Amino acid sequence: MIERRGKLIGVGVGPGDPELMTLKAVRMIQEADRVILPQKEAKEARAYKIALGAVPALAGKCLLGLDFPMTRDKDLRDRQIQANYESLRSYLKAGEKLVFLTIGDPCIYSTFCYLKIYAEEEGYQTSLVNGIPSFVAAAARLNIPLCLDDEEVHLLNGKSHLAEGLALPGSKIVMKAGPCSEKLAEAVDKLPGARVYAVKDCGLPGEEVFNDIHELPGDYMLTVIVKE
Amino acid sequence: MIERRGKLIGVGVGPGDPELMTLKAVRMIQEADRVILPQKEAKEARAYKIALGAVPALAGKCLLGLDFPMTRDKDLRDRQIQANYESLRSYLKAGEKLVFLTIGDPCIYSTFCYLKIYAEEEGYQTSLVNGIPSFVAAAARLNIPLCLDDEEVHLLNGKSHLAEGLALPGSKIVMKAGPCSEKLAEAVDKLPGARVYAVKDCGLPGEEVFNDIHELPGDYMLTVIVKE
Repeated sequence: MIERRGKLIGVGVGPGDPELMTLKAVRMIQEADRVILPQKEAKEARAYKIALGAVPALAGKCLLGLDFPMTRDKDLRDRQIQANYESLRSYLKAGEKLVFLTIGDPCIYSTFCYLKIYAEEEGYQTSLVNGIPSFVAAAARLNIPLCLDDEEVHLLNGKSHLAEGLALPGSKIVMKAGPCSEKLAEAVDKLPGARVYAVKDCGLPGEEVFNDIHELPGDYMLTVIVKE
Repeated sequence: MIERRGKLIGVGVGPGDPELMTLKAVRMIQEADRVILPQKEAKEARAYKIALGAVPALAGKCLLGLDFPMTRDKDLRDRQIQANYESLRSYLKAGEKLVFLTIGDPCIYSTFCYLKIYAEEEGYQTSLVNGIPSFVAAAARLNIPLCLDDEEVHLLNGKSHLAEGLALPGSKIVMKAGPCSEKLAEAVDKLPGARVYAVKDCGLPGEEVFNDIHELPGDYMLTVIVKE
């Protein structure tokens, strides 16, 4: 008898438009024994809604919703991730193929990469299936290149030293920019000639484009591109 | 009579694995009147071979191969891009929907973004359809996150001041790293504790993974990730 080993696969669903999902992401969902979503009410999760648009069969899948509270408290976060691992452990033990859906790409700021460590520690196979990252989706939405020739690209965030980061050469991207929009505006004001592009909810029904650093909304799903 | 206006669409086919193409890229190829490839012998182009793996109907499409010589001479490059635009102009004028295939994502270091300027100047509609960028594909291949929490990511290249760039916080990516591998090794040697990961031909038959900065091959399609 061949033992069927559980697998934990992080699958990126891209930034919002179901059509930006990859063929591999679609297949992984179709082949999954269970689909895990980063929200307690699985069917309320953004990643679920995106994936459902490309894979109607997802509606008939076994779902598991896990809560990952937004917190700056690392201990609290780690305890929650461990508790979440405990919630899916029995399915891995039973040999299930578990697909964890994540917005964008699982290699870019995804909590999944913490979760998979627990599975690996117990000898389960894990893997990552790419999705379109939000910053390239924002550039495509704006119909502009993110970088040309030898331009550099710098991916910053609210915790970055924004004044120093924005002074680097090339294109600067600030992800999850809403909560730091004031700090960002202040830093951009010190860069004469900087061009600002921002997209909220790229590829989703609430999508909006902004070109004025002083008019950015406080939304979490906001990607800002600052060009020299 | 409604005039049928030509369209020029840059479509990313991802780094190599046909299954990493998006549903939208597949549809765009299927709907194209003509598929343009960044190599004179269209069927020899890497992007053609990748796309064919996901869209067999591509074999029956009208193809147009254009040469984009690798050159540091900007005048020569600009003349070639203009000449290439002249080659596809009549098709735009005839109202065709032209899909230009590019490896990775058309927003990231794609010559297509220069070509589309000519079409826009003549009033033709252009757009960009994302593909998976090679650096996230490399991270997924290595089964590691590119960034977590508030880590920054810096996309560098052979023209960057590598010593300064690699000293930035977070993950550093060097794309098209082969030609600058010596310079890169020298810069990494000055960073004690830096972890190096490299993938050549990610998702293609010749794929190889390297972990020693002194053993990198000189290949063009080499992505290097340097972590603190």
